[in-house]
Amino acid sequence: MPLSIVILAAGQGKRMKSDLPKVLQPLAGRPLLSHVLETAKSLDADAIHVVYGHGGDRVREQLKHEPVSWVLQAEQLGTGHAVAQAMPAIPDDHKVLILYGDVPLIRKDSLQKLLDGSSEKSLGLLTVILADPTGYGRIVRDNAGNVVRIVEQKDANTKERAINEGNSGLMAMPAGLLRKWLAALRNDNSQGEYYLTDVIVMAVREGLKIAAVVAPSETEVLGVNDKVQLAQLEGALRAQRAAELMLQGVTLADPARIDIRGNVTVGRDVFIDVNVVMVGDVALGDRVRIGPNNYLKDCRIDADTEIHPNCVVDRATIGPRNLIGPFARIRPESVLHEDVHIGNFVEVKKSDIGAGSKANHLTYLGDATVGRKVNVGAGTVTVNYDGVNKHRTEIGDGAFVGSGSMLVAPLKVGANANTGAGSTITKDAPEGKLTLARARQVTIDGWRRPEKKGS
Amino acid sequence: MPLSIVILAAGQGKRMKSDLPKVLQPLAGRPLLSHVLETAKSLDADAIHVVYGHGGDRVREQLKHEPVSWVLQAEQLGTGHAVAQAMPAIPDDHKVLILYGDVPLIRKDSLQKLLDGSSEKSLGLLTVILADPTGYGRIVRDNAGNVVRIVEQKDANTKERAINEGNSGLMAMPAGLLRKWLAALRNDNSQGEYYLTDVIVMAVREGLKIAAVVAPSETEVLGVNDKVQLAQLEGALRAQRAAELMLQGVTLADPARIDIRGNVTVGRDVFIDVNVVMVGDVALGDRVRIGPNNYLKDCRIDADTEIHPNCVVDRATIGPRNLIGPFARIRPESVLHEDVHIGNFVEVKKSDIGAGSKANHLTYLGDATVGRKVNVGAGTVTVNYDGVNKHRTEIGDGAFVGSGSMLVAPLKVGANANTGAGSTITKDAPEGKLTLARARQVTIDGWRRPEKKGS
Amino acid sequence: MPLSIVILAAGQGKRMKSDLPKVLQPLAGRPLLSHVLETAKSLDADAIHVVYGHGGDRVREQLKHEPVSWVLQAEQLGTGHAVAQAMPAIPDDHKVLILYGDVPLIRKDSLQKLLDGSSEKSLGLLTVILADPTGYGRIVRDNAGNVVRIVEQKDANTKERAINEGNSGLMAMPAGLLRKWLAALRNDNSQGEYYLTDVIVMAVREGLKIAAVVAPSETEVLGVNDKVQLAQLEGALRAQRAAELMLQGVTLADPARIDIRGNVTVGRDVFIDVNVVMVGDVALGDRVRIGPNNYLKDCRIDADTEIHPNCVVDRATIGPRNLIGPFARIRPESVLHEDVHIGNFVEVKKSDIGAGSKANHLTYLGDATVGRKVNVGAGTVTVNYDGVNKHRTEIGDGAFVGSGSMLVAPLKVGANANTGAGSTITKDAPEGKLTLARARQVTIDGWRRPEKKGS
Repeated sequence: MPLSIVILAAGQGKRMKSDLPKVLQPLAGRPLLSHVLETAKSLDADAIHVVYGHGGDRVREQLKHEPVSWVLQAEQLGTGHAVAQAMPAIPDDHKVLILYGDVPLIRKDSLQKLLDGSSEKSLGLLTVILADPTGYGRIVRDNAGNVVRIVEQKDANTKERAINEGNSGLMAMPAGLLRKWLAALRNDNSQGEYYLTDVIVMAVREGLKIAAVVAPSETEVLGVNDKVQLAQLEGALRAQRAAELMLQGVTLADPARIDIRGNVTVGRDVFIDVNVVMVGDVALGDRVRIGPNNYLKDCRIDADTEIHPNCVVDRATIGPRNLIGPFARIRPESVLHEDVHIGNFVEVKKSDIGAGSKANHLTYLGDATVGRKVNVGAGTVTVNYDGVNKHRTEIGDGAFVGSGSMLVAPLKVGANANTGAGSTITKDAPEGKLTLARARQVTIDGWRRPEKKGS
Repeated sequence: MPLSIVILAAGQGKRMKSDLPKVLQPLAGRPLLSHVLETAKSLDADAIHVVYGHGGDRVREQLKHEPVSWVLQAEQLGTGHAVAQAMPAIPDDHKVLILYGDVPLIRKDSLQKLLDGSSEKSLGLLTVILADPTGYGRIVRDNAGNVVRIVEQKDANTKERAINEGNSGLMAMPAGLLRKWLAALRNDNSQGEYYLTDVIVMAVREGLKIAAVVAPSETEVLGVNDKVQLAQLEGALRAQRAAELMLQGVTLADPARIDIRGNVTVGRDVFIDVNVVMVGDVALGDRVRIGPNNYLKDCRIDADTEIHPNCVVDRATIGPRNLIGPFARIRPESVLHEDVHIGNFVEVKKSDIGAGSKANHLTYLGDATVGRKVNVGAGTVTVNYDGVNKHRTEIGDGAFVGSGSMLVAPLKVGANANTGAGSTITKDAPEGKLTLARARQVTIDGWRRPEKKGS
Repeated sequence: MPLSIVILAAGQGKRMKSDLPKVLQPLAGRPLLSHVLETAKSLDADAIHVVYGHGGDRVREQLKHEPVSWVLQAEQLGTGHAVAQAMPAIPDDHKVLILYGDVPLIRKDSLQKLLDGSSEKSLGLLTVILADPTGYGRIVRDNAGNVVRIVEQKDANTKERAINEGNSGLMAMPAGLLRKWLAALRNDNSQGEYYLTDVIVMAVREGLKIAAVVAPSETEVLGVNDKVQLAQLEGALRAQRAAELMLQGVTLADPARIDIRGNVTVGRDVFIDVNVVMVGDVALGDRVRIGPNNYLKDCRIDADTEIHPNCVVDRATIGPRNLIGPFARIRPESVLHEDVHIGNFVEVKKSDIGAGSKANHLTYLGDATVGRKVNVGAGTVTVNYDGVNKHRTEIGDGAFVGSGSMLVAPLKVGANANTGAGSTITKDAPEGKLTLARARQVTIDGWRRPEKKGS
């Protein structure tokens, strides 16, 4: 049976107290809806329909490259009404899986079981065992364990309220049946809304079996209605991703203090200290050590490199056996080859640093090509910007750049050249020679120290 | 009935292992006693009496601006004795509310209920449901739920010990009755102390009702006796304040990793990443983003500004659409206008930075007035200190300060002036012109690199 | 009875997914086995035998200075076989205590009780109450509370599986008996291994009493099989060490966010903020305050010193009343005397800084001897490296080093000397005088700003 997925993403999310639509709220750096879409796309569906609401153009705009069809629910008339907006595009012989844009941690496995349980004679329903089921529709089963009905909180008697199995709202069923049931929904309730859950009653009434699949954890079916719940899911995801890394062999100083907002790949014997934030695509080679309080974004760090505490690395490639930091910032389009040392209070931007080169203190390397075995002294600046244009600095292999050098680009420092400490170098420094620009040192006789003013 | 509040703050707190009196131990950056005082002041009391102990002069000194009357308990003879010290100043027709300087998280709501429950015929007593009631006096109720007595741990039988409702020690009653009961207290116990709790027995004996108000959480009545308990309360307060922020719509990367030690106000759609510490009064505008590991103290940060990781901001005003950091330090009396960029390894102190200006790398701006659209090159220093006096630097609109400039104050750099990279500028740089101080670049022929000594 | 300790350390630990042998995996910065050895050495043993496995040469190499005898278990034939390898060196009249290299948090107290319970008539066995006993051998006791047997998971009936007291595997018994029992072990089980636990059955069969000592917590007997368990123990140790500090009077902003990987000693009224990592031997004097995100390694910090946020201190001595940071890095072999201020973006390496001296901004002090009351201006660099040799800089008492000074070592700046801002000083600066090297400031008439290229 071909599959159509309907994702309900029209909720306004007033309790989020945000100008951002609820399904765009970020979880681990990505919109809630993106998490659901990623899972939805992993199933073999013919079509994915996303029902968005009035004011949800921003949702559609932000996710415009997703392979989904967008369905506008112009009025907020309930979940049943929302699903109905998508039905015209879904043939009767499809199976329909209903997901929620604000239930982001649902896993493929659970959905597959849900689909397996759904047929012309059976409605697949995802249920969940809840520590506190208050507010949920309760799953009432007979002695044989078959689901016989779902009782809403307000209609439940004391015994039913004690049931800790709740309805998650995720379900699967044939499109033909769903279409018929949706048409029969009524809105004669206090909210005046058409509720999707009412189709379950209809299914039972028509003699269908309710194929209840119990979710493996509450987390999978948790919806987000406010920032507290969003933080809970962030915590759940943090724990899950930390566990995945550890099972791959990574040593984490504290799984409660690592944030992974993207995809992290790791070699063997990687160590990650406390409070490391990793964003986007981060690849860590064998025996890489990441010190505390590092922020890594879209970068590759090769084998045996150590990132000391308090660095920021963003869209850079760091080769093997580097020593980086503490307090280093490696900015986009930087490539550090093997055995490079970048020390404290050093910024590297859009530069290529050759093997064995070092810039250990208080330096700015921007738009520079640095050769191999170069030593860059403390307080060096590549003066790459004249106010309107950026210029490149080239430093040859084996060069020794004296401390406090201002290298005014465009500029070449030749191989094995030295520049004298405190020199402003404006013309190319020839290879193998010492180039400097330095004023004569004088001592002023009779000079007296400044005195305290007004004293 | 007019209200007098008595706060017991004389405990030595030996288990704190500290030279600081217990009630001065900081919780969320303020003394324990200050938390209690803040709540006490929110009630409509005629007088607040703080009973301090021998050696507690430091308490009185530190909180001398508080509108309270200080009462010395010269000897530590128990809680009953402590309260008695305050009674001479309290008229019989007052209601007395008894609080504790080391029970800091009590909330106004609970105290209001306690006061409401207290009358000539009824003693208001705050009780608490405890996960582990060991050590607490147990609240014994009859079948109708009325409190009939309080049994101390040592006197409790097995059944009574199983009671999980305990006496918090917070209570309210008419001053006349309290005075009478206090006079009747005896110290014939193993500690030789006068216990305040004994007045409850007297109240029951005289036929008063015990109007027990159950505290909404253990946290509210938790006392601090050692640093472990202090940390527990810090954690409780952290969770509470994080929740408050989230319910206002703030997205927190991790509510367990944010420290709020003061008052934080927020606009819409604020994001705060992990390990941010906020001290004092911090105001965050709409869509402000605070990166990880930032330390913010007494500052205002306006709309759409982003603070990158690892910055320290202290007593500064940061305008809208600023980009700050990473690794920036904005110090007191600094004002950054709109669209300012302050980058890595940059310190700003007592400076005013105009709209659209940038200082992105390795710079010290101290005692400076920087105009609009100024570009400050890497490695620039405002040389504001001559060893005894501080001098100001003024940089005009549109100026371009070359990298490595030493701007020796007092100094004016004119509007649209440029200073050449590597220049030490000691006299005013005229507007619209290039000013520099630079030695001629020379290359030394026949120069040889230093050789390894002793090799 | 003399004591021989046998530590089983031959497990390969495949689930660690690491090239490092399991017992070398670091916990709080030290190998798992080192933790066990430290505890073992605290007992009064005649000998400690460590059984290591094929491929465990790295274990032996890394811990070669430990006073233990190394016993190779060439084949992995089970725990009984492992112990048997050590027996030839152990006399019959010894008591044998069996420990595990991957059970690191066992405490001396528990082992002492275990030894006390062991005799010719009694086998000492450490048991543990488990939240989830699945997989553990269950301790079956009779009505009198005597251990009658141990039932393995696979052999346990429903009632036995409900027993939550498990066998930790740690045990003590006379060597003579152990030798006899080990010889009788059989490997006719699914794994084909000789199990040490089978000796317990033999002991019972021979009428010995099982002297079960219940471990005070699960943590003590938790073994490490994967990185998730390793992180759990790291967390347990973190909590334990934080509690120890707090009970000594230290105020911790958050006990869940402090990492102690070594030995920390503290004076009175120390405050440690969130996310501080302490490695090796760290000594903190009275009233020391450590700000958030600091990394301290092998250092001494004296009374009343404050370390502001985001610093790294490594093998340095910091005197009393210092103000350090934020963003300071104090490197090995540095000694800071009293009342020193080291500010933001300042690195100090192998330097001695005299009382009352300050280097507050963007400075590198390496291989320097700085006198008392010296002021080092922003952007100063001790140019200590000529590419091959390191040279020292000496700065006399009361000197004032101007901002942006390059001090080319070897160099002496005399007492009370000044150096002019922006000077490169290559020769000694005489005391009490102003020395500078500065080019003349000129303004270029007719100069025009660079224009945008290609526009």
